[in-house]
Parts: sequence; structure tokens; C-alpha cells
Amino acid sequence: MKAMPKGLLIVLSGPSGAGKGTVCQLLRQRNPRLAYSVSATTRAPRPGEKHGVNYFFLNREEFETWRARGEFLEWAEVYGNLYGTPRSYVEERLASGQDVLLEIDTQGALQVKASFPTGVFIFLLPPSFAELKARITQRGTESENERMRRLAAAQSEIAQLRAYDYLVVNDKVEEAVARVEAILMAEHARVNRFSDEELKAQLEGQLG
Amino acid sequence: MKAMPKGLLIVLSGPSGAGKGTVCQLLRQRNPRLAYSVSATTRAPRPGEKHGVNYFFLNREEFETWRARGEFLEWAEVYGNLYGTPRSYVEERLASGQDVLLEIDTQGALQVKASFPTGVFIFLLPPSFAELKARITQRGTESENERMRRLAAAQSEIAQLRAYDYLVVNDKVEEAVARVEAILMAEHARVNRFSDEELKAQLEGQLG
Repeated sequence: MKAMPKGLLIVLSGPSGAGKGTVCQLLRQRNPRLAYSVSATTRAPRPGEKHGVNYFFLNREEFETWRARGEFLEWAEVYGNLYGTPRSYVEERLASGQDVLLEIDTQGALQVKASFPTGVFIFLLPPSFAELKARITQRGTESENERMRRLAAAQSEIAQLRAYDYLVVNDKVEEAVARVEAILMAEHARVNRFSDEELKAQLEGQLG
Repeated sequence: MKAMPKGLLIVLSGPSGAGKGTVCQLLRQRNPRLAYSVSATTRAPRPGEKHGVNYFFLNREEFETWRARGEFLEWAEVYGNLYGTPRSYVEERLASGQDVLLEIDTQGALQVKASFPTGVFIFLLPPSFAELKARITQRGTESENERMRRLAAAQSEIAQLRAYDYLVVNDKVEEAVARVEAILMAEHARVNRFSDEELKAQLEGQLG
């Protein structure tokens, strides 16, 4: 009936402590058909994090091997740890028409934008600086140095905001998720997301 | 706290019989803060339509006077009748930060786009040609000639679709309205809707 537009690549980024993980978790719960890319990292697992679920936890040598094979859509060194997004999973899902959600830091987001300019780039902003600081401190898994570096980075990351399509303030998680869902619904309705062929099929389907 | 972005101009257009009126009615019910511009027209009222509510029903001379005064944001002759959108109401509401909804035919929509390139242009598509024909026939207020003209126009109007931002199929009114609401929410989150000054205020508000 209708031409199926290819899947959307949704990149959710923003400063450390903006609540990307929490927003993505609720998004995935509410949208089980949304494909979620598990990243690879060399950083140590935080309590409760599982290999293959939250991240692929690799040592530096393993990470370098993946990278040498061209396995990463983007990779970056952040706070002394390596992070990367496996490429094949993302490309396969998009080609099959599924939407794919990436949760990545701002360095990675800009790399992905170079490869996927038609992706939907969402910048998640923490509700306040005080809140951001509290969230990072509460994690209790980072050294003081690491905390300082994260807070400084958060400020400079925000200056990159203009490269993004959307700005979503994470004041309440449910509201932030509702805004991201609205963005996905809207992006699927964008005329310029349809090729001429898809548009023709759509119109023929509609007009008999 | 946050800089208030100026209101959005939302233009809902599409072929005759696509169900623009029904979609707008439900949108307004569900979003009472959405300003709705009442158009002027020289066509005869349909049963139940009220002056100043559905349209300003003017005779041709009155319409020409308004037009001569520059009172119309757009105007067009459609199926032998004149239609126009009063300019001052729209501009005042937008300046005050309120979103304004225009329900207009495709000729008018393209004129508005020339004046308001940052407007949100939504093309509403009827679910099927059979359905479109049935809707127009059911109105029972038009001559056979008028019906034929409307159906032919509907086909050519659809070719203009590329000038719009969004395509919404009106399969079920509630779903079409939900899609339009998502589009509004998403557009309010677009980074390029914020001026540098507004963005700075937003970030300062967030970062203390």
C-alpha cells in the first residue's frame, strides 16, 4: 500500500549527566520496535551494567582490533576511555526500515553526522547546572579529577548545540521522552524524507 | 527563565475533501491555546456555517475593499469564489508568541510560504480517492460541475506536495490530529527556531 520509508537514525546526545541513559531506557520501554545500538567501550562497567546490554566492555587491545577492521561508525576517546558504535548493526537495521537509536557523547554525534547527514540529531540538556553536578556526584564511581573534567567538558559541549536538529530539556524524564517521540513521529512525516519514487507510490496508493 | 520563542505559523493545506476542516476542529478542541485564523470568503455559507466563526462571509465588493486595504495575508479565487486570510490577526498573535493555525487551500498556502518561509507547512492527504469523492458528494451543496472541477483540482494540487514540510494522511481523524500535534511539539524543539540570543538565554537558564 504505502512505500516504506527507510528507517530513521536518531542520535541522542548531550553533555555527561544530562540523563541520556535514563531517557533512552524509557524510550526503549515505550517503543519496543526502536532498534538500540549497543556501544563498545574500554571504560570499567558501573555497578549493574552488563556486557552486551549496556555496552560491549572491551579492553584497549580488543577495541583497537575492532577499530582496525572498520567496525566502528564512530569512535572517540572520552575522559581517557575509548567508545565506539558498531557500524554493521546500525546499517542493517536502517536498511530494513527500522528506526535506530544511538546514545552517544557529542564528539561521536558529530562524527555520525558526517556519515549520516539525514539522521535526526537531538541534544539533551540537563535541567540545571546544579542538577547536573548532583547527578554526576551521585554516581559515586568517579574520581574527583574525572568529575572536574566532566563538568568542564559539559560547558564546552553545549557550545556545539547548533550542529543539532533539536534541543530537548530533560526537566522531567517522561516529558523529555514524549518530546523525543513527537520528534520521531514528525520526522517520519517530513516530505523530504520520501524519495520521488516513494512519494509517487504514496500518492498512487492514496489516489487509487 | 527561558526565552520565549515566537509563535509558530502552522499552515494546514491539501486538496478539497481531504478533511482539513474536521482535523482543524479537533486540533482546536484539544489545543485551546492555538490561535485559529478565520478566513474571509465570497462563497455561500454551507448549512451550519456561521459568519465570524467558520468564515467572514463577504460579498465580492466587500472582499475587494479588504483586499485593496492590504488586509489579506493571502487571497485566491478558487472554484469561482474569493478566499482570503486577514493579515493583522495572524501577525499580532505570532508576535505575542502564540501559535497560529491556518486552514487554507494550496494556492493560498504557497502565497503564505512566500511571506512566512519559516512557517510549518503541512499537506493533508485524503485516505483514498474513493473516499475523497464520497466526502465531496456527501456535502450535497455543490453542483455537478463544481464537483468535477474539485476532483480535477485535487489531482493537480497533489503534485505541489514537495513545497510542503510534512505529509499527513487523514486516515483516522484522531491519528491525523496526533501527527499534527507531534509536528508542533517537534518544531518547537528545533534548534534553528531559536535565535542566538534566545539560545544563549536558554543555556544560561539551564546552566545557572
